[in-house]
Formats: sequence, C-alpha cells, structure tokens
Amino acid sequence: DRRGIPEAILAEGKSVEQVVTLAETALETTDRALLTRISDRQYRTLASSLEESAPDATLERRGSTVRVYTPAHEPPTLEATVGIVTAGAVDEGVADEAHVVCADAGATIDRVDDIGVAALDRTLDQVDRLREADVLIVAAGREGALPTVVAGLVDTPVIGLPVSSGYGHGGDGEAALAGMLQSCTVLSVVNVDAGFVAGGQATLIARAIDAARN
Amino acid sequence: DRRGIPEAILAEGKSVEQVVTLAETALETTDRALLTRISDRQYRTLASSLEESAPDATLERRGSTVRVYTPAHEPPTLEATVGIVTAGAVDEGVADEAHVVCADAGATIDRVDDIGVAALDRTLDQVDRLREADVLIVAAGREGALPTVVAGLVDTPVIGLPVSSGYGHGGDGEAALAGMLQSCTVLSVVNVDAGFVAGGQATLIARAIDAARN
Amino acid sequence: DRRGIPEAILAEGKSVEQVVTLAETALETTDRALLTRISDRQYRTLASSLEESAPDATLERRGSTVRVYTPAHEPPTLEATVGIVTAGAVDEGVADEAHVVCADAGATIDRVDDIGVAALDRTLDQVDRLREADVLIVAAGREGALPTVVAGLVDTPVIGLPVSSGYGHGGDGEAALAGMLQSCTVLSVVNVDAGFVAGGQATLIARAIDAARN
Amino acid sequence: DRRGIPEAILAEGKSVEQVVTLAETALETTDRALLTRISDRQYRTLASSLEESAPDATLERRGSTVRVYTPAHEPPTLEATVGIVTAGAVDEGVADEAHVVCADAGATIDRVDDIGVAALDRTLDQVDRLREADVLIVAAGREGALPTVVAGLVDTPVIGLPVSSGYGHGGDGEAALAGMLQSCTVLSVVNVDAGFVAGGQATLIARAIDAARN
Amino acid sequence: DRRGIPEAILAEGKSVEQVVTLAETALETTDRALLTRISDRQYRTLASSLEESAPDATLERRGSTVRVYTPAHEPPTLEATVGIVTAGAVDEGVADEAHVVCADAGATIDRVDDIGVAALDRTLDQVDRLREADVLIVAAGREGALPTVVAGLVDTPVIGLPVSSGYGHGGDGEAALAGMLQSCTVLSVVNVDAGFVAGGQATLIARAIDAARN
Amino acid sequence: DRRGIPEAILAEGKSVEQVVTLAETALETTDRALLTRISDRQYRTLASSLEESAPDATLERRGSTVRVYTPAHEPPTLEATVGIVTAGAVDEGVADEAHVVCADAGATIDRVDDIGVAALDRTLDQVDRLREADVLIVAAGREGALPTVVAGLVDTPVIGLPVSSGYGHGGDGEAALAGMLQSCTVLSVVNVDAGFVAGGQATLIARAIDAARN
Amino acid sequence: DRRGIPEAILAEGKSVEQVVTLAETALETTDRALLTRISDRQYRTLASSLEESAPDATLERRGSTVRVYTPAHEPPTLEATVGIVTAGAVDEGVADEAHVVCADAGATIDRVDDIGVAALDRTLDQVDRLREADVLIVAAGREGALPTVVAGLVDTPVIGLPVSSGYGHGGDGEAALAGMLQSCTVLSVVNVDAGFVAGGQATLIARAIDAARN
Amino acid sequence: DRRGIPEAILAEGKSVEQVVTLAETALETTDRALLTRISDRQYRTLASSLEESAPDATLERRGSTVRVYTPAHEPPTLEATVGIVTAGAVDEGVADEAHVVCADAGATIDRVDDIGVAALDRTLDQVDRLREADVLIVAAGREGALPTVVAGLVDTPVIGLPVSSGYGHGGDGEAALAGMLQSCTVLSVVNVDAGFVAGGQATLIARAIDAARN
Ligand SMILES: Nc1ncnc2c1ncn2[C@@H]1O[C@H](COP(=O)(O)O)[C@@H](O)[C@H]1O
Ligand SMILES: Nc1ncnc2c1ncn2[C@@H]1O[C@H](COP(=O)(O)O)[C@@H](O)[C@H]1O
Ligand SMILES: Nc1ncnc2c1ncn2[C@@H]1O[C@H](COP(=O)(O)O)[C@@H](O)[C@H]1O
Ligand SMILES: Nc1ncnc2c1ncn2[C@@H]1O[C@H](COP(=O)(O)O)[C@@H](O)[C@H]1O
Ligand SMILES: [Mg+2]
Ligand SMILES: [Mg+2]
Ligand SMILES: [Mg+2]
Ligand SMILES: [Mg+2]
Ligand SMILES: [Mg+2]
Ligand SMILES: [Mg+2]
Ligand SMILES: [Mg+2]
Ligand SMILES: [Mg+2]
Repeated sequence: DRRGIPEAILAEGKSVEQVVTLAETALETTDRALLTRISDRQYRTLASSLEESAPDATLERRGSTVRVYTPAHEPPTLEATVGIVTAGAVDEGVADEAHVVCADAGATIDRVDDIGVAALDRTLDQVDRLREADVLIVAAGREGALPTVVAGLVDTPVIGLPVSSGYGHGGDGEAALAGMLQSCTVLSVVNVDAGFVAGGQATLIARAIDAARN
Repeated sequence: DRRGIPEAILAEGKSVEQVVTLAETALETTDRALLTRISDRQYRTLASSLEESAPDATLERRGSTVRVYTPAHEPPTLEATVGIVTAGAVDEGVADEAHVVCADAGATIDRVDDIGVAALDRTLDQVDRLREADVLIVAAGREGALPTVVAGLVDTPVIGLPVSSGYGHGGDGEAALAGMLQSCTVLSVVNVDAGFVAGGQATLIARAIDAARN
Repeated sequence: DRRGIPEAILAEGKSVEQVVTLAETALETTDRALLTRISDRQYRTLASSLEESAPDATLERRGSTVRVYTPAHEPPTLEATVGIVTAGAVDEGVADEAHVVCADAGATIDRVDDIGVAALDRTLDQVDRLREADVLIVAAGREGALPTVVAGLVDTPVIGLPVSSGYGHGGDGEAALAGMLQSCTVLSVVNVDAGFVAGGQATLIARAIDAARN
Repeated sequence: DRRGIPEAILAEGKSVEQVVTLAETALETTDRALLTRISDRQYRTLASSLEESAPDATLERRGSTVRVYTPAHEPPTLEATVGIVTAGAVDEGVADEAHVVCADAGATIDRVDDIGVAALDRTLDQVDRLREADVLIVAAGREGALPTVVAGLVDTPVIGLPVSSGYGHGGDGEAALAGMLQSCTVLSVVNVDAGFVAGGQATLIARAIDAARN
Repeated sequence: DRRGIPEAILAEGKSVEQVVTLAETALETTDRALLTRISDRQYRTLASSLEESAPDATLERRGSTVRVYTPAHEPPTLEATVGIVTAGAVDEGVADEAHVVCADAGATIDRVDDIGVAALDRTLDQVDRLREADVLIVAAGREGALPTVVAGLVDTPVIGLPVSSGYGHGGDGEAALAGMLQSCTVLSVVNVDAGFVAGGQATLIARAIDAARN
Repeated sequence: DRRGIPEAILAEGKSVEQVVTLAETALETTDRALLTRISDRQYRTLASSLEESAPDATLERRGSTVRVYTPAHEPPTLEATVGIVTAGAVDEGVADEAHVVCADAGATIDRVDDIGVAALDRTLDQVDRLREADVLIVAAGREGALPTVVAGLVDTPVIGLPVSSGYGHGGDGEAALAGMLQSCTVLSVVNVDAGFVAGGQATLIARAIDAARN
Repeated sequence: DRRGIPEAILAEGKSVEQVVTLAETALETTDRALLTRISDRQYRTLASSLEESAPDATLERRGSTVRVYTPAHEPPTLEATVGIVTAGAVDEGVADEAHVVCADAGATIDRVDDIGVAALDRTLDQVDRLREADVLIVAAGREGALPTVVAGLVDTPVIGLPVSSGYGHGGDGEAALAGMLQSCTVLSVVNVDAGFVAGGQATLIARAIDAARN
Repeated sequence: DRRGIPEAILAEGKSVEQVVTLAETALETTDRALLTRISDRQYRTLASSLEESAPDATLERRGSTVRVYTPAHEPPTLEATVGIVTAGAVDEGVADEAHVVCADAGATIDRVDDIGVAALDRTLDQVDRLREADVLIVAAGREGALPTVVAGLVDTPVIGLPVSSGYGHGGDGEAALAGMLQSCTVLSVVNVDAGFVAGGQATLIARAIDAARN
C-alpha cells in the first residue's frame, strides 16, 4: 500500500474478465483487494469466481465499492476517527468510496447521512457528533453548501467532496466544486466524485494523528 | 415608471456630462431621478450642478446608488415589506442598488447585513425577523450559500442575488450564480451584481401584494 | 409540505421499485404524492401497483409529472392565478412540471402554449390574458427571448424558465439561461429545465398574494 | 478594394504615428481611407496632420469610425438599401462601424436607432420601414433578442450583430451571440462587436442586388 | 412558407408516429412537406405510410433530409444560384440540409464537395466555378478554415456553416464556429450543424437577387 | 480566532484608511493583527500610523502578508511542522500567505523554495527533508505538476496550492488547479492563489496532530 | 502518402461496410492500408472479408489501430528512432495510434509503457533509454505531468499527447492538454487523443533526421 | 543552456531593477543574456546600465525580445534552417520571440512575414521558399488558418504558434489555438503567444538535424 492508502482497482471501463483477474491477482499476492465503481454484472461474476478461487475470502460491498480479503489478511487499525457526511441520498455512492478506503486503512468511521442544508435542523442536530471526528469528509452535490456550513461549526479539518448531481447550468458537480473552492470557511477540496481521493487524503491525516497518538 | 419599477440611469460607462444631463432631464420631466453605479467624481459633479439647476432637490446616496427628487415629487407607498439581506460587507454595494429601487417604489425595507453562513448563529439569530418580510432579496458572493440557507428557514419568496466577489475558479460571482441556480431549496435568481433587477422583481411582487391588500 | 410547496419525488435516476415504494409511502402517510420526470415504464408499474395498494387513489399525469391522491386528501386552494406560458411544443414538458406543482398547491392555472416570438402576433394576441395572471412563468428554449418580450408587456412578476432545447453553441438551454439573465426587462430566473423550482417560486408568490387577499 | 468592401485601418492597438502614416499612405495611393476604432487622441492628431498633408481632404466621423477622401475620389454608388438597426444607445458605436463601411461602398443607409424589444411598440412602429430595406443589420447587446424579433417580421435577409454590453454571466456580448446563433427565426451572425464584418457582408449582398438590378 | 423559406419538420427527437402525422398533415394542407434529421426507421415508416395515404406523392431524400410533394404542388423557381461547398465527406449531411431547403425554394444549386484546405489545389481548381454562384454556403468542420479561404477568393457573399466534427479541445464544431467568427475575410455565420438556417439565409438572399432580376 | 486559524484582514480592495482602522482595532482588542494582500502604499501608511498608535508593536512582513502584535500578545505554539514548498519564484507570494497564517498559529515552518519539476534533481534533493514535515503545502503555477510529484514521494498529507501564473490557454492558474484536481497521486486542493485557505487547512491538521501529541 | 505520413482510415463513425470498402480499395491501389479507432466488430468483418479478397495480405493490430499490406508492399525505412512513452495503462490505446503510424512510415519504435509520475522511480529508471530516441511522444491523461517531467530530463524534442482519461473538472483530457500547453519545460502538443497527429508529426521529424543522416 | 535552448529572462511582471540585475548577472556568469517581453522603459534602463557595467557588450533588440552578449561569448552555430512565418503584422512580436531564441541557438532563420490566407496568392508565392526550411514556425491570430494551409503544402514539420489577436468569441488567441489543435493537416502546437516555446522546440529539432548532418 502506497502511503498507507489501499491500492484500488477502478472497475469502471474495464471488462468483467479484467476486473476478476486483477482482483484475484491482488488477493493472491496481498491477501486483499479493493474495487471501486464496480457494476452489478462485474460484482456478480467476481463473487461467483471467488467462490471457486478463494472460497474462504470475505466480500464486503458498500454501494459500488467492494473490499475482499482472505483470513490471512491482518487488517491495520488506526486510532483515529473519520467522519463521513452526506447532504442527501444521491451523495451516498460517492461517500461510500471514501468510506471503504478509510475503513480498509483501519480508521474508525462515523457515517452521518442526509443532513443537507435545505433542512438545517437536521444539520445542527449532528454538530456535537461531528465535532468528535478527527477529520471530516463532507459530500454534497447541486450547490454543495454543506461543507461550508459544517466547517463553520467545527474545529476539525474538513475535506469537501463535490458530487455530480444537479442538472442545467453548474450541473454534474461543477457548481458544487466551484462553491467549495470559494468557501468562506476554510476547507480543502477534491475533484467531483473523487471519493477515492477524499478517502485517501483523510486516511493520510488519520495516520498522522494515529502516529502522534502512539 | 414602467411596471412601477423606477427608471434608472446606469452611470457606469457614461461621461460625467452625460450623467448630469440625463439626471437633470429626468428631474425636470418627472421630478425625480435614480442613478446606479455612480462614481465619486460623477456624484460630486452632479451634486454641485444640481445646487445650481435644482437647488431645492433632495439627494440621497446609498453606496453608489443615488436618488434625487424635487419637492413636487409625490413618493408612492406600498403596503409591503422587502427584506434585503447580505452575507458580508462586500455584498453591500450591490444590495444597496436593490435597496434604493424598492425604497423609491415605496416599499418598506428591512435591511439585515453581514449574516453569512460562515458564522451560522448570526444567520439563525435573524430568522424570526426574516420571516416577517413579504419578499426577500439575499445577496451573497463567493460560494453564495446564504440564499439557500435562508430559503430553507422561511416561507417567503426568496430572490438570490449573486455578487462578483471571490477570486480564482468560480470567482467574479460565477460560483455564487451557479450555486443559487442549483439550490436545493426553492428560489429564483438574477444575474451577478444585478441589484437593480433584484430590486425591480421584488418591487413587482411587493406591488402585487400591496394591490391584494388594498 | 415545506413552505406550501408540495414535496416531490424526482423519479429520474431511480429504479422502478424505488419510485413505487416512495410514492406508496407518501400516499400512506400524507394521502398524496407528486412525481417528476417519470418514465413510461415507471408510470405503468406505479399505476398497476396502486391498483392493488390504493385502489381508490386518483392519478393525474401531465407530461412526465404525476400527481396521486386518495379521497382523504383535502386539496388546498389559493386565491391567485399563475399564468404558465410556453414558446413552443418542446417547452411543454418542462412547463408541465411547474403546472402540476402550482395546481397541486391550489393555484388557478392559466396555461398559454406556443406563443414564441418567431410569430409575434401569436404573442401579442395573448397579452390581455397574460395581464390578468398574478404571476407568470414563461418557458422558452433556444434563444429564450419570450420572457423578455412578455415582461415588457405586463405589470406582473415574470419567472423565466429556460428549456434545454437547441443544438450547437449555446444549446442545451445555456443561451436561453444567459439571455434571461441578461434580459433588458426585469425578471428573475431559475435553472435550465427547473420546472419544479419555477412552480415552487410561483407558488410562494401566489401564497403571499392569497394571504394578502384573505 | 477587395470584393468592393472598403479596406479599413483598425486604429485600436496602433500608435498615433502608425495610424497617421497608414491613413496618409492610403489617401495618397487610393484617394481615400477608412479607419475603425479610432480614439479621440488618434483622431485629433490625424485631423491636424491632414490639414498639412492633404488640406483639401474631407473627414467624416461617425462614432469611432472615420472616412477620409480627397476631391479626386469618385465614390461608388449601389442601387440597394442597407437598413441598420440598433436596440439601444449602447449599440450605436458598433452599428456606426457597419454604417460607414456600407455608406463608403455606396449603399443607401436607412438607420433606425433605439427600438429594442423592452418597449415593443417602438419596434412594431418601424416594421413597415424595415420591410423596405434590401438587407438588414440588427445590432443588439445584453440578451440580443432584437434580430430574432425583426427577422420574424420581415422577408429581408437579416445579419445579427451582437454587441459587448451586459455584465455578469453572458456579459460582454456572449449571451447576445449565443442567442442569435440559437435564433428560432432564420438569420446569420457575425462576431461580437464586428460592425466592420457586418457592414462588409451587407455590402456584398447589396452589390449582388445592385448587379442584378443593373 | 414564412419568408419564402420552406417550413420544415425537425424529425430528431420526435416519435415515428409524430413524424408521420406532421408530414401527412403538411402534405394534406400544403401539398408538400420537408423533414430534417430523419432516421432510417422514421423514413421507412413514413415512406410506407405515404404509400397508403398519398400514393401519388414524390419522396426525395438527400442524406437525412427529405422532401415530399404531391402532383398538386407547384414548385417555385428563383433565378439565382446557391453554391454549396463542403470541406470533406463528414460535412455532407449538414450541407444536404441546406441543399434541400434552397432547392425546395426554387434556387439552382451548384454543389461542390470535398475541397477542404488540406489539399489546397482541389480548392483552387474550383475557384472559377465558385465565382459564378450568387451566394455561397461553405460547410466545414474541425478547424473550419475553408470559408475563410473561399471568401478570400470570390466576390460573392459567403455563409460559413460549421460542422460538429472533430474530437478533443474545440471538437463538436466549436473550433470551426469560433474560427469562422474570427475570420480575417468577411463572412457571416450560422450555428454548428445549422444547415437549415444556412439554407434559409441563402434562400432569402437568392430571393432578393431573383426579385432584383425580375 | 475561529478554529485556531488567525482572523485576517484582506487588504485588497480596501482603502488605506479602512486597512489602518481595521488593523488598529484588531490590535487594540486582540493584541495582534494579520493582513493579507497588502499593497506597498497600504503598508507604509499602516507602519507610520502604528508608530503613533502602537509604538511598541512588532511588524513582520512576508511578501504582501503582514503580522502585527504587541508585547501583550502571547503567541500560541503547535508541536507540528508545516512544510511549505514552491515550484518557482512566482509562487512565493502566494506561499507567503500560507506561511504567515501557519506561523502565526504557532506551527514550525519548513520553507523550501524553487524546486519545480523542470529541474527534477532539485526536487529529488529535498525529498528527505519534505518527509519530515507533518503536513505539506505545495504551491505551483503554470501546469502545477509539483504537488503530484511530491505527493508520490512522501507519506504526508499534501495540500495543492495552484498559483495564477501562466498565460494563454489554462493560464491564471486554471491549468494548475485542474491538474491538481486530476492528480494521479492523492492530494487535496484549495482555490487558485488561496494561500490563506491552504495555510488555514494546514493549521487545522497541525492542531489535530499537536493535540494528539500532547 | 502525403508528406510521408501514411494515409489512414478513421473507422470510428463509419459503418462496417464503409470500413471494409475503404480498406480494400486502399489495398488494391496502394498495397497497404492503415485503420484507426476500429471496433472489434469492424475488425472481425474486415479480417474475414480480406481472407477472401486479399488472402496473402498481412494484418497487424495494435490496440484499435490496424495495418494491412500485401506482399507487393515495399515498406519504407527511416534511420531514426521514435520513443513512445505512456504514463499508464489507460494511455496505451492512444499511443498505439502514434506507434503504428511511425512504424508504418519506417521509423524504429522504442516503446516504454507505464512510467507515470505517481511512481517516479519507474520514470527515472528509463531516462537513459529515453535519451537515445531522436524524438519522443509522451502520452498521459488526468493531470498529464509526464511530458513535462520527461522533457526536463532529455535533450530530445518531446511531443505531448494528452489522453482523455480522468473524470470531474478537467476530465476528458482537458486538464492534461492545458497542463502540457502550460508546461514549464519546452515541448509542443497535439489535441486530446490525437495519436495519429502525434505519430505524423514525429514521422516528419524522423524523416528530416533520416534525410540529414543519409 | 538547458537542452541547447538559451535560458531567457521573462521581463514582463518584473521591476526594472530586477530585470537589470538578472541580465547583468547572466552576462557576468555566461557572457550572454536573453530577455523576452521587455518594455520600452525596461529596455532603456537596461541599455544605459550596461553602458556602465558592460561597455563592450552588444545589444540586439527584435520587437520586445533582446539579446545581449560580450565579446567573450562564442555563439553556437547549427547547420539547420528554421522558417518563421507570420500571417499579419499583429503576429510579428510573438514571432520575434521565437526568432531570437532560434537565432541565439545558432540556427539560420528564414523569416517570411504577412502571408495570411486572406490574400492567398501571397501565401502561395512563398511555398518554394518555405519548402527549403528544415522546420517551420507559423504564427497566426484570429482564426489561425495559416499553419494548416502551410502544412498542407510542405513536407517539413510545422509548429503552430497561435497569437492573442482577435476580439469577441474566440478572441485572445483561443480560436487560433483550437483551430490549430483541430487542424486537418498534421502539425503540433504551443500555447497562445508562446513564441519562446515555439522557438525552443524548433531549436531542439534543428539541433537534432544538425547533429545528424555532422
Ligand atoms: N474511484 C477512483 N478514483 C480515482 N482513482 C482511483 C479510483 N479507484 C482506483 N483509483 C486509483 O487508480 C489506480 C488503479 O488504476 P488501474 O490500474 O486502472 O486499476 C489505483 O492505484 C488508485 O490509485
Ligand atoms: N424535477 C425536480 N427538479 C428539482 N428538484 C426536484 C425535482 N423533483 C423533486 N425535486 C426536489 O427534490 C426532492 C426529492 O428528491 P428525492 O429525495 O431524490 O426524491 C423534493 O423534495 C424536491 O424538493
Ligand atoms: N473593426 C474591425 N473589425 C474587424 N476587422 C477590421 C476592422 N477594421 C479593419 N478590419 C480589417 O482589418 C484589416 C486591417 O488590419 P490592419 O492591417 O491591422 O490595419 C482590414 O483590411 C480589414 O479587413
Ligand atoms: N487572502 C485571503 N484569501 C481568502 N480569504 C481571506 C484572505 N484574507 C482574509 N481572508 C478571510 O476573509 C476574512 C476577512 O474579510 P474582511 O472582513 O473583508 O476583511 C477573514 O476572516 C478571513 O477568513
Ligand atoms: Mg448540496
Ligand atoms: Mg457567500
Ligand atoms: Mg425561444
Ligand atoms: Mg438587446
Ligand atoms: Mg475544415
Ligand atoms: Mg508548475
Ligand atoms: Mg498523467
Ligand atoms: Mg490568421
């Protein structure tokens, strides 16, 4: 694992065969594999192929992100909590990518869904909980206002994760990205739908905090 | 006045002489004049020229927007309140444009400055007050999140007014405009820095409410 | 209903099962449901599922927007008229979204189709009728000139609704949106194809006028 | 003159000396010169230099476009009328460029100013007159709706000339250009502020009609 | 026919049934119909439906543009030639749209294909022929240089027609459009792939020349 | 100080008087002030004004960022190192903004200038040193490749800071921003020239590490 | 072959029949054919058709680029080496296009895959080899940093070839293109995915060197 | 000199003092200096300062590019010719930058000005001469068609150099850049106004040819 960020196989744009081969090779050589943006069809073929080739492997799927490991895999642990927050249902798939990356790296995950600013009391209700995380990933689409609002309420570093929802002008995540870059509270940002990158950056921060704690 | 929206003279891009002539003509023919985006130099020349040509005229300046009227002018009144809200100091000039338009049309103005979402309790503190307006103009630059947050807290129609602050990607008001167009709470929008248009649209709504009340 | 704007289920991008479940849950808990951007397949499955689960429910479909309610639903009424205007046939689906939202909120709808500026006498013929609405939504694609022309002819607040027609440079509604934002008559705007938002904003204005009348 | 379109010297971006030299050379070799986008300072120096070098030359200035010719110049004439229309005062400078080009080529010019669509009866009042031109140039900024409206009312070829007015999104003539390209009535377009090109294209059409007439 | 430009039915985005109904209605009421952007499937159904409903009608197809007329149709004629030029094979479909519009309006068409500037002697070989047209439509994709080069070689008005070929930056016709707008020889332009508009504008010019000749 | 990030006065766009007043007020109430994007003229006036009003205050200037504090100010300290890296001389001013923010918050700064990838051995020479920081800010303009290269060589969280250098396509920092968002190594990003935001985010991470250490 | 760059058939967007006809015609008249962006289905049909029509022809496929020649073809040779470098697996298809063009023109190819800057020692390991080429094509997607890094390490002319990988802002090769245009080391660039153009330009340089050597 | 491309000092954006210091240091350490984008004021101060500090140095100025060397400088020579071509007067300054870079590296320069495609016979008249260069730089603004046309007429590698002329849509060199990237003849491109990069790339090619010749 480079920098403690799990290597991942980007399933999107690969054939079912390529995905299975890459996953099985990863499993054989490292006892684990992480796949992002996997389709239903890719997942089903992978699962049934693994029943043959690696019958004792565990598969964990979260949205379109999948983690596989054998009993030989010794999962790392980090003494650090990553809060992963979504504004709405549409943001969950992208947040899942970050979720699995951080979980696989051993961080504790505190997942808080559906607290977008259109219904602000749902946001405010979670502030105390959000303050307890060591680092926060906040995923939001359309106008992407949630990271700004959250960052104004906590002392924690916030990573804004724009999501490609929305239609018309500024759709496909461009308004959310631009808004997070213009945020009047301090935060840093990753590209639209880059859940993997957000998870990786949160992992690096969590590792630094874990190292400082131990 | 077309549609009850005061005719205005856009001073920006005009010579000092043109501005003075246009204002004096308006004053002679309609007993009033409204000037937007006036520079210090244009204002000073206008003021001293009016001392000669219209010594009994009243000049009211708010930011770079100026209203002039003679004693003959009978100001209209509307039984309706326009709330005008700004996120930060940088938004005030644009909001002033809307302010003067609505005031000149006879609406009651409730002005609430500097309640941007970076310090959310300042926003929340004003909610009760904002709920009392008949229509709200919410001016915000950078990521322009304030109209979304306000619209989620009130029952009133909200007009988002993006302001050309911010630098880098999405600067000059483009992120704010795109964010307001993508807003996950219902609102309508005017162009970047279009305080005059926001004020005009709020005036039309205030007039409809005034007519319904009377 | 938040702010008197009916909650809606955005069917686009959801599975048939999700749509049916969300609609049936809404119906059970609130005696009504409103669905936007529903496909033929989603609609057919919903209709036949409701025959079982809610045999006495009424389904009303207008374009790809659907309204369902049980006999227990007491429809609200607003003493206010929303004029909904389209430039051409291609704009009707987006206008329908606004139409159903306002109708569901209890407003009287005056619908005027196909009066785009290419054949200006069709526009002019309707002016008297348009003047009678309390608020107007004007939907137009391509160059989106109709809201500007209409707003120049009436005293009513106009909401410009750009539609994603047109190909080439400025296609997909971008020219229409930019033109409405640049309009030389006063109007406010919603995003491209945002019929739901236009309908919501018109509803808020109609409610304010209804309240003032009553 | 290439294609019967007068050669022009684009003064913008040239030094006063370059402008004077180029104009005097043109005058010596062809008995005439046409200069576009000339500044006040460039104009004054040119005028006083010509008093020396070509005391019998005639200078005609229209906006920032200047035409100079000596008594030896035999102006061409075309039996064809170019209608040149502007939406508002801000469009006149760009229209002047087209005006001088067509006039210099010998066309009859019918100039109609300030009939933008915000006050539609001013547009409609001029329709009969516009129908009499052989070709029309219609200059408009902001949302640029006037060429669409005019082209829907006449049988004449219309050249849309977008003008770089407007601020915010779609400002600097981009909304006007995109709108004219998307126009739902048939017209062709030149670039933003390209009065010279519009005048040149109208001249080519006027020459073809003149040739057909003679 | 408005302005002598044939009314056309844009088949793209319509169902097979809509296309057939619109075409049959046009045929019944005006003895002719013109359809653009028709698919193979739409065409086949239209053709077999017309065998029933209008067995004596003539169908002419050119690319994806189709012209239908009954024996009762009296085709107009114009004493004017429209030259229609393409840079390469990929531009022919868009040029066909213009071709059928002008032909249907009665103009003589001189069609010159595949003379793009990459093989400049093919362009130069056709110059004498191009000079004989009364108006030229020049279709080109990718960098769209052909209209500039042609307009530098002829005295005729040239309408640039950008085509949505090309990939990468400036693809989909945007580079061609921008290049034609920036052309250093005089020409006017229509939107990307707007063969119908180019044909309409050429028809208007051809009609003016025809009128002047007769 | 919100979140431990020093409050800053953005001098750009403010008058000399406003800057002096804001700085003196901050000094009086909090014993310190931090000013970003200060001009020479603003600085000189501030310095001489402070000689009167706060003769025992210390002024530290780094590029266009200035820190002032009185003897009463007790500077915080953080047990954490922020590495601040620039690709070239042109990036130093923006990096200085981050530098002063982090220094003012009490972090140890390790500043490494001019190691852009055009001369890769200068980059490689510094790798060991860069590995010792707890968090890295990497500022780069033009193509902005340095953060990607650095992030591939260290285990530390990297914040990419795009700088508005470069001309032509992708200039003004847009290429650098897009490149960092697309980076094939994990990093997070702030807006173009947002040195203040990068410094703030690094401070938040440094504080979390400091807290974990103590 | 124009300029010694092999004529190629762009299979993308053509029907299977068109591709086969064009290839067989080329083979008959010139004893060779080169096809780019060929699909599996197009390839299979071509291969089986050639078994009939040209049974002694040789087919060479590299990614989606195919080269066919008969025994009568006398392949050219160039005394020059083109280095073709890719950053990652996703760039190989585009690089293949360049590869086949240069190989077909007779250059020696040195192909070096998967040395992107995320794992910089893989890049550095190849420097000596890269220095031996006469001209280099460097293909990279996402942030496109590899050509900059390579050009800083060699004395050879480098042609940057941006690849349309990446998602979100700057995706589809736009960040890579902008980055290469902004490169702080000297290189020239071709459009996104323009492997054919990169190969053609490298061929022209290789031919010039070959001519100088012989 | 890295890669045989002369180190250059970009004077733009530097103070007069910085420019003089950098130039004098370069002269002292390497006996030569090359400055690009120098202003008149910077040049005059440099010239008079050098009269003191380096009285025997030679200054050569071409447009805003300046080359200085002492008698101790042994200028390199390359047995290779770089053709430098401009479309119009406005392109000469940018071409000068390339010119001086190549000349300073020892290449023979063949400079051909003002042969843009609007007057195609001027282009065609120079073809034989252009064919004799070893590599060509072709600078063009507005629609940037000249490199495409030239590359279609010669066997030589062509580097397209877009120039930031033109106004309106596609102005500032963007249309020229996009057109060159879309060119239907093979060429490679540098960024808008990047005369230094074009000259550097041509130098690398000229050096490779010189090496092959010797
Ligand atoms: N969803 C994702 N977004 C961005 N990068 C990813 C994603 N999934 C995997 N990666 C990265 O891409 C690399 C795998 O790419 P590949 O070799 O194409 O499977 C991994 O090493 C990760 O660094
Ligand atoms: N067509 C639409 N456009 C914009 N917003 C919509 C639309 N339809 C529904 N909505 C909003 O989206 C919310 C439903 O989203 P969802 O939870 O994804 O079904 C509703 O509460 C509406 O506020
Ligand atoms: N305002 C203008 N817009 C576009 N082209 C112009 C304009 N004025 C002059 N031109 C053209 O530019 C050429 C003169 O350019 P120049 O040699 O720079 O003076 C003339 O031959 C005209 O074709
Ligand atoms: N260079 C900067 N970039 C971004 N934000 C800044 C910068 N300098 C100061 N700020 C922020 O802007 C606020 C000050 O704004 P103002 O009230 O206009 O002085 C501070 O509280 C900071 O959060
Ligand atoms: Mg959101
Ligand atoms: Mg804001
Ligand atoms: Mg329209
Ligand atoms: Mg207009
Ligand atoms: Mg072309
Ligand atoms: Mg850099
Ligand atoms: Mg890359
Ligand atoms: Mg050019």
